[in-house]
Amino acid sequence: MPDACVFTIFGSTGHLSRTKLLPALYRLDKAGRLPEAMSILGIGRRDWDNSRWRTEVSKWLGERLGNSLEQEAFGRFSKRLHFLSADIGDAGSSAHLRQALDTGPGFPPNHVYYLSLPPSEYKVAADYLALAGLNQEIAGWRRLVVEKPFGYHLEDAQVLDHCLHRNFAEHQIFRIDHYLGKETVQNVFVFRFANLMWEPLWNRNLIDHVQITHGEIAGIEDRAAYYETAGALRDMIQSHLMQMLALVAMEPPASMDAESIRDEKVKVLKSIRPIAKGAVHAHAFRAQYARGRIKDREVPGYLDEKQVDKQSTTETYAALKLYIDNWRWRNVPFYLRTGKRLARNSSLIAIRFKHPPQQLFRETQIQAPPPNWLLMGIQPEQCIRAEVQVREPGIGMRARTTQLDASTCYQAGYQLDAYESLLLDIISGDHSQFLRSDEVEWAWRVVDPIIRAWSVDRAFIHTYPAGSWGPEEADRIFEREDQKWRHSFSVGDAPS
Amino acid sequence: MPDACVFTIFGSTGHLSRTKLLPALYRLDKAGRLPEAMSILGIGRRDWDNSRWRTEVSKWLGERLGNSLEQEAFGRFSKRLHFLSADIGDAGSSAHLRQALDTGPGFPPNHVYYLSLPPSEYKVAADYLALAGLNQEIAGWRRLVVEKPFGYHLEDAQVLDHCLHRNFAEHQIFRIDHYLGKETVQNVFVFRFANLMWEPLWNRNLIDHVQITHGEIAGIEDRAAYYETAGALRDMIQSHLMQMLALVAMEPPASMDAESIRDEKVKVLKSIRPIAKGAVHAHAFRAQYARGRIKDREVPGYLDEKQVDKQSTTETYAALKLYIDNWRWRNVPFYLRTGKRLARNSSLIAIRFKHPPQQLFRETQIQAPPPNWLLMGIQPEQCIRAEVQVREPGIGMRARTTQLDASTCYQAGYQLDAYESLLLDIISGDHSQFLRSDEVEWAWRVVDPIIRAWSVDRAFIHTYPAGSWGPEEADRIFEREDQKWRHSFSVGDAPS
Repeated sequence: MPDACVFTIFGSTGHLSRTKLLPALYRLDKAGRLPEAMSILGIGRRDWDNSRWRTEVSKWLGERLGNSLEQEAFGRFSKRLHFLSADIGDAGSSAHLRQALDTGPGFPPNHVYYLSLPPSEYKVAADYLALAGLNQEIAGWRRLVVEKPFGYHLEDAQVLDHCLHRNFAEHQIFRIDHYLGKETVQNVFVFRFANLMWEPLWNRNLIDHVQITHGEIAGIEDRAAYYETAGALRDMIQSHLMQMLALVAMEPPASMDAESIRDEKVKVLKSIRPIAKGAVHAHAFRAQYARGRIKDREVPGYLDEKQVDKQSTTETYAALKLYIDNWRWRNVPFYLRTGKRLARNSSLIAIRFKHPPQQLFRETQIQAPPPNWLLMGIQPEQCIRAEVQVREPGIGMRARTTQLDASTCYQAGYQLDAYESLLLDIISGDHSQFLRSDEVEWAWRVVDPIIRAWSVDRAFIHTYPAGSWGPEEADRIFEREDQKWRHSFSVGDAPS
Repeated sequence: MPDACVFTIFGSTGHLSRTKLLPALYRLDKAGRLPEAMSILGIGRRDWDNSRWRTEVSKWLGERLGNSLEQEAFGRFSKRLHFLSADIGDAGSSAHLRQALDTGPGFPPNHVYYLSLPPSEYKVAADYLALAGLNQEIAGWRRLVVEKPFGYHLEDAQVLDHCLHRNFAEHQIFRIDHYLGKETVQNVFVFRFANLMWEPLWNRNLIDHVQITHGEIAGIEDRAAYYETAGALRDMIQSHLMQMLALVAMEPPASMDAESIRDEKVKVLKSIRPIAKGAVHAHAFRAQYARGRIKDREVPGYLDEKQVDKQSTTETYAALKLYIDNWRWRNVPFYLRTGKRLARNSSLIAIRFKHPPQQLFRETQIQAPPPNWLLMGIQPEQCIRAEVQVREPGIGMRARTTQLDASTCYQAGYQLDAYESLLLDIISGDHSQFLRSDEVEWAWRVVDPIIRAWSVDRAFIHTYPAGSWGPEEADRIFEREDQKWRHSFSVGDAPS
């Protein structure tokens, strides 16, 4: 069991806190995974007391969990809940926070500060904590948690990092990319390194290319204000997809400790071939969804979404080709793609192998058998699938594609939600699933040339109908004719 | 469609003819796969005419096929059926055969001579055919088909071969090992060479060992006379299992033509490290079934079977360790095993990979993850399965075994029975699934030292209860502690 702590949530009445953090903490508590003496201190501007806070949390959890909220379990959980009315805009109030933490009933000496705040307030919050000396690890440990986006572009990210580091050491900072908390993402690691049979295949001699897709049916919903300043490249590729790329491409680390793993991820990011200014067009593609149909329902285009500028060229679809110039991957393209309002929800790592030499079957009915694929589904299918050729039963020598499939392996057993897993890591002080400062910076370095090129080129953007797989023009980033997007798991979907 | 021919069956009223050849020919006919003008000429000592022969065949097919025998289809099939009463012991009658073949109603000029006879009569039959010039390919092709066993030991096989070659050229001879006709055996070839992802793993650097098992629930049934002279080593290992070994171990051939494939198989057999006289004990193990239970039924031991000598040391179980001393396989043990009255019917190729380096998971809950296996089921499951480690969902870093499984790939579509496939190959003149003279000889060379050792050592044989997996003492041939027999597909069955 990890050390007990006070788990402080800034912005505790906000969306993330209501829908993710508190439900995750409740479930962890119910499963007996939280230290006995751990307290949860909500901080917000509202003039609530503990009792009101407990009532509100009960309501939120009820909305979120419905029947699975158990009164007895909540009764235990609610004893952990405390509330402090404070405003990080009012520097003077930091002393109150300090006092509350120092004197709270049975409060352990260790603190988590979870900044469930807009990124623009991270610096203020860090200063606020430092002002009361709450950054100093004298009586116990102090951990600061921030969520992506970590900056708006490379330079901005560097400034943010500088501000955080003024008051907090790197080992105190937990940068969350909740994608890394997903079971299947974590499985990439075990799958690669607990088996002998993949490593010998995992290189430029045998792999033709890698595709990493994150597609969503949803549009931007009510997040226009955020999305207009972000776009698909920042929102998904610089963060989640780049992390997946690092997990797929990394060398085996020396050990499982956080620094060894993150060292290897940074090595991958550092090895990505920088995209020259003139090459952005060949390496990156953006588009925006237009009106279309999703599940038989007419949905508006991006420009018709509430609060979106009618002239906006913010991309809701982005595709990228990257090369990792190291011994393992030189000249193997990694295609990263994400989009809103696509045909399916699909997060998929797809690895395409090269063709075997085909001379052997030259005189048979086997003509150019399709190449092998290895597919790792993140969501909605949590699945590992190898596509191989077998002999078609019957007369003559024909092949057909069959799938070696481990879809069932994740069905049984208790599944942790990504936030449960990550909150537990924070409490335990395990950094492996969190981004290190240099990791964030190098991910920004990769996309920076594209951000720059797109930000000055605001006259035109391709469109695609909502409910499609994005515009055909996105194919221009492919290196060769026989490379095509793989949208899903089904065999019929495999490009030939 | 292949050339039309007269398909002559010697021993046409015997067991093989009734239960395998005629049903296979009927089904091929029904599926429209036989040349229009092809005739089937039964030869036997009985004093039958065409009409009696057709009645008998109809009865046999009815017994064999039951409801799936269609009268209309049989009506068409029976028009192909002719009978000639002749005795190969009576050399004079060969002229009659010649005449029948030359003048039969609409008989095509090409002949298949299928020797469905005891092996001891092969030489006589070949001479008989030659006496009437029926071996000569002047008017059309002449193909001689023989079934295993091809000889009784190395020298005997050489003599048989010499006798056949006196009258027939190698390209005229089709040596049947009906195992090679099985879909899944043929699939080994496609699986290995139409996929990129296996070949890089298929070698001594990554594979720990290979197991080839053929287990049967059945005892020797009414074949004591044959079995007493044969034994498991001759009956299964020298033939079927050695063929499977060759398919698993062979280099990719230059093309799919029969000679290229058989060249590669012979290369494997030639590369097998000869077993020195003093090493037989370490490399081979034999045993005999004793009384036991099969499916809740008491069954007798081998010595209590009808017509078995009470002092017999004929082995009903044999296990062998072989090494292939080439670049690909040097020092990788191939374990071959077969037995009667075992716990299950199971023909299985099981490839065990080496352990990955495990330092990475040293400090986690993953302790020595089990190695990867690749399983190819021949029967009863026709299945391909890869056993890999994945992350156990939930807290912490644990691994569990999951199976990537393509069991469904063979379920759909028309399946050829092994004999259908092989008879069609004979008619088409395709030798790929038949054994070449040197292939047979080299397979004999491998087992010859064991045959010699066992034949002089007739005092004692291990026993195992019917319905078990054979005696534990068979484990003595394993090279290392962590090598164990893999009996079936289930994960629980994998030795840890």
